[in-house]
Amino acid sequence: MAYDALIAHVKQTQALDQVGMLLEWDQEAMMPPAGTGLRAEQRGALEAVLHARRTDPRIGDWLAAVDEGTLDAAGRANVDRIRRDFIRNERMPCDLAEAIARATSLGHRTWAQAREASDFAAFQPALTEIVNLKRQQADAQRLDGETRYDALLDGFEPGMREGPLREVLGGLRAPLSDLRARIAASGRDVPELTGSFAPDKQMALARELATVFGYDWQAGRMDLVTHPFCVGTLSDVRITTRVDEAQPFDCLYSVIHEVGHAVYEQGVPEAHALTPAGGHVSMGVHESQSRLMENQLGRSRAFCGWLHGKMVQSFGIEMGAEDFYAAVNRVAPGFIRTEADEVHYNLHILMRFDLERALLDGELEVADLEGAWSERFETDFGQVVPDAARGVLQDVHWSAGLFGYFPTYALGNIYAAALHEALRAALPDLDALLAKGESGPVVTWLRENVHSHGAIIPAPELMERATGGPVTPAPLIAYLEAKFGELYGL
Amino acid sequence: MAYDALIAHVKQTQALDQVGMLLEWDQEAMMPPAGTGLRAEQRGALEAVLHARRTDPRIGDWLAAVDEGTLDAAGRANVDRIRRDFIRNERMPCDLAEAIARATSLGHRTWAQAREASDFAAFQPALTEIVNLKRQQADAQRLDGETRYDALLDGFEPGMREGPLREVLGGLRAPLSDLRARIAASGRDVPELTGSFAPDKQMALARELATVFGYDWQAGRMDLVTHPFCVGTLSDVRITTRVDEAQPFDCLYSVIHEVGHAVYEQGVPEAHALTPAGGHVSMGVHESQSRLMENQLGRSRAFCGWLHGKMVQSFGIEMGAEDFYAAVNRVAPGFIRTEADEVHYNLHILMRFDLERALLDGELEVADLEGAWSERFETDFGQVVPDAARGVLQDVHWSAGLFGYFPTYALGNIYAAALHEALRAALPDLDALLAKGESGPVVTWLRENVHSHGAIIPAPELMERATGGPVTPAPLIAYLEAKFGELYGL
Repeated sequence: MAYDALIAHVKQTQALDQVGMLLEWDQEAMMPPAGTGLRAEQRGALEAVLHARRTDPRIGDWLAAVDEGTLDAAGRANVDRIRRDFIRNERMPCDLAEAIARATSLGHRTWAQAREASDFAAFQPALTEIVNLKRQQADAQRLDGETRYDALLDGFEPGMREGPLREVLGGLRAPLSDLRARIAASGRDVPELTGSFAPDKQMALARELATVFGYDWQAGRMDLVTHPFCVGTLSDVRITTRVDEAQPFDCLYSVIHEVGHAVYEQGVPEAHALTPAGGHVSMGVHESQSRLMENQLGRSRAFCGWLHGKMVQSFGIEMGAEDFYAAVNRVAPGFIRTEADEVHYNLHILMRFDLERALLDGELEVADLEGAWSERFETDFGQVVPDAARGVLQDVHWSAGLFGYFPTYALGNIYAAALHEALRAALPDLDALLAKGESGPVVTWLRENVHSHGAIIPAPELMERATGGPVTPAPLIAYLEAKFGELYGL
Repeated sequence: MAYDALIAHVKQTQALDQVGMLLEWDQEAMMPPAGTGLRAEQRGALEAVLHARRTDPRIGDWLAAVDEGTLDAAGRANVDRIRRDFIRNERMPCDLAEAIARATSLGHRTWAQAREASDFAAFQPALTEIVNLKRQQADAQRLDGETRYDALLDGFEPGMREGPLREVLGGLRAPLSDLRARIAASGRDVPELTGSFAPDKQMALARELATVFGYDWQAGRMDLVTHPFCVGTLSDVRITTRVDEAQPFDCLYSVIHEVGHAVYEQGVPEAHALTPAGGHVSMGVHESQSRLMENQLGRSRAFCGWLHGKMVQSFGIEMGAEDFYAAVNRVAPGFIRTEADEVHYNLHILMRFDLERALLDGELEVADLEGAWSERFETDFGQVVPDAARGVLQDVHWSAGLFGYFPTYALGNIYAAALHEALRAALPDLDALLAKGESGPVVTWLRENVHSHGAIIPAPELMERATGGPVTPAPLIAYLEAKFGELYGL
């Protein structure tokens, strides 16, 4: 009885939360330009409803009355996740929540202007305030034995802790920095795909790619936005993309990436819809699904062969298949995380992970952040950051108060490489499939080993079961060494 | 203080109500086919929140504590509307509200199937249940001196009562029935526009029409749906349309119609946004805005001249301008309300108004409805209803529990004709403007006389002020007699 009442409450809350996400999708993809102010009122009103529901004291009563012995695995997972969220929500003082909402809303605008002007000093006071408030939040919410970072990380990667995460991610830095340096020193010149690629043809091919990677159009749609994302779950999962006439890979590979997220959401267990168990298990696992499709599969030689044929058909490109594969995987040093190749990407993440931990712990103050950024960047990338816009101001996350989010990107890459090894072992003819533009058995394998478990099994255990052992950075490093070693003749 | 607290509560509720309307728009215009079930959960959860907010007992406390003497006209209008709604909401028993929600949700599906099969008997039990429940609702909600119909009508046409409405609408029946018969007897053959009209060109012209009639694209957008509608207010008002390759007037005139609604919503007083005073004053006035633009302006000879030029440009039609004007205004007897011309339209409404009043009062039982429909149709239209699908089953309203809504369509037509007379008096060069595809002064006049007043002035008084006297059916009859008398040589 208590469990049923609890779940009924949570389901309604989750349905309203989805409405909030639809409002965000609408704002990015559909809303007329003048609608911003009204939309803020609507989102604010919904947020107030959600906050009241999430801190409803009846949740505590129901949790206390639940007899966990009578529950199945999904029920226990639900109670566990609801309890953890409720405890943290209860520990968050109302005025602190409001202060954070205000500071990040204001901070986001200040950040956008500061980035425009490439002026870190203009953002510094706002970020100082945000960091202060996030420290307070972490102190209020952290449980016995947890660090500040643990408390925030848990919102994105439930059950993961700072210590184990440092260990896993830490193993990436030296090998990646070394690989990057060897590629830079190789002197190998990889061709770039240049030309003009008609937007409507890019979109047609993007739709085909989505279908190829298992996206169910009956339960989704694709629209144009400034920054691509994926939203929704089960029977309504929407993807978005953007089109640059000169850079077709931007549209095509961002679609494969979002389809990885979308196919995950379309495959979570419907029986547990609108409960925690019926959702994604962690942001890291989410990102593993998008990265696996985008990189290990989508940027493989086999699939690039298929895509090359499509590019010849659609755009009449004259580049050969092997050069095309190299162009897709071209390694180029750069300052911007979101434009980074597979070799550089995680180095961008690692520095953010270290810097944001130092900020939270008080080892680093915001006043010193720009300097710390530049120093670290030069060490890891061998280049001098030219300005704040291409440095410390490039990402939206901190202005939005998202501390603890960055490492889930790198964790996703590590999970993706481990899943990729297991997938190749399970499907020996994977390359033959990819060369034909087929992914049916891949999706089936992912459904069975990842998607269908929703959040019933915790992420680390889920990944262990799927990959046959504890997850380490080794598969990712081996994959990158093999692929780029060959491409750059190392 | 009480007023401020009341308004803050109402504004949040109204913002959430707008979210609900956005969900409906999304469902019709955007949602992937598989999303229906999940959307029902989302709408149900939001509906529960809205119901709790609308019946929150604090509303009663705030209303009791408000000092109306300190309020301006908008404040008094707000208190008046909030009080009336609150009293009716309070009088609605929870189990009755739930029974109606269930019966109409089920009834809608039953109706759709029955209409498909053209089988009234299949819908009869569901409609009997709905009528029973609506009688109970009316009995619960009606105030001293109100009839059952008054109680339901008030939700759509606040302040209007059955008696005065019968008087106004009753004046239409004989003259319209007579005009219809004279046209049928005239033997005049009016040409039809035939051919194939490319959907993309129809949509391009539809966009131009929306701009011509004052639609602000910065605060709106247009999409395709099965049944066109308009949704939203102020800075986000969206219109919808549909395209039939063989029937360009379906798309073009439905867009002008929805633009009439939209320009009203884009022009309500922003200072009172999210309060009753800052919304539309009644459904009748809403419909007057759409009908004025669609019929009195959009189907005028002057505007048809401009549109004819566009049709020649876009589609190369060979019909002359005068024939085109006649084709736009072609009178054709038919069974379907939504396809009716200006002459027949209100006759469709009048019979529904009389039948639904009889149903509510218990003078007519659902078992006898199909017969009553056929009899009335033959009397007023001189034709025999061929089947239930083209008769009593054609409209969605009753299956949705919308009793009291139909007459607002006819009232809108009466208001539109009265406004049209006043508009012509204020703008002697109106035809010259329309002939050039210009509506700026029209929109300015409507802004000043209608839109900018929101719901601060009650509808009858607003219409009296705008038209210079009490509204009667005379302007509508005079307009139709003049226009169609000339077209059909009567």
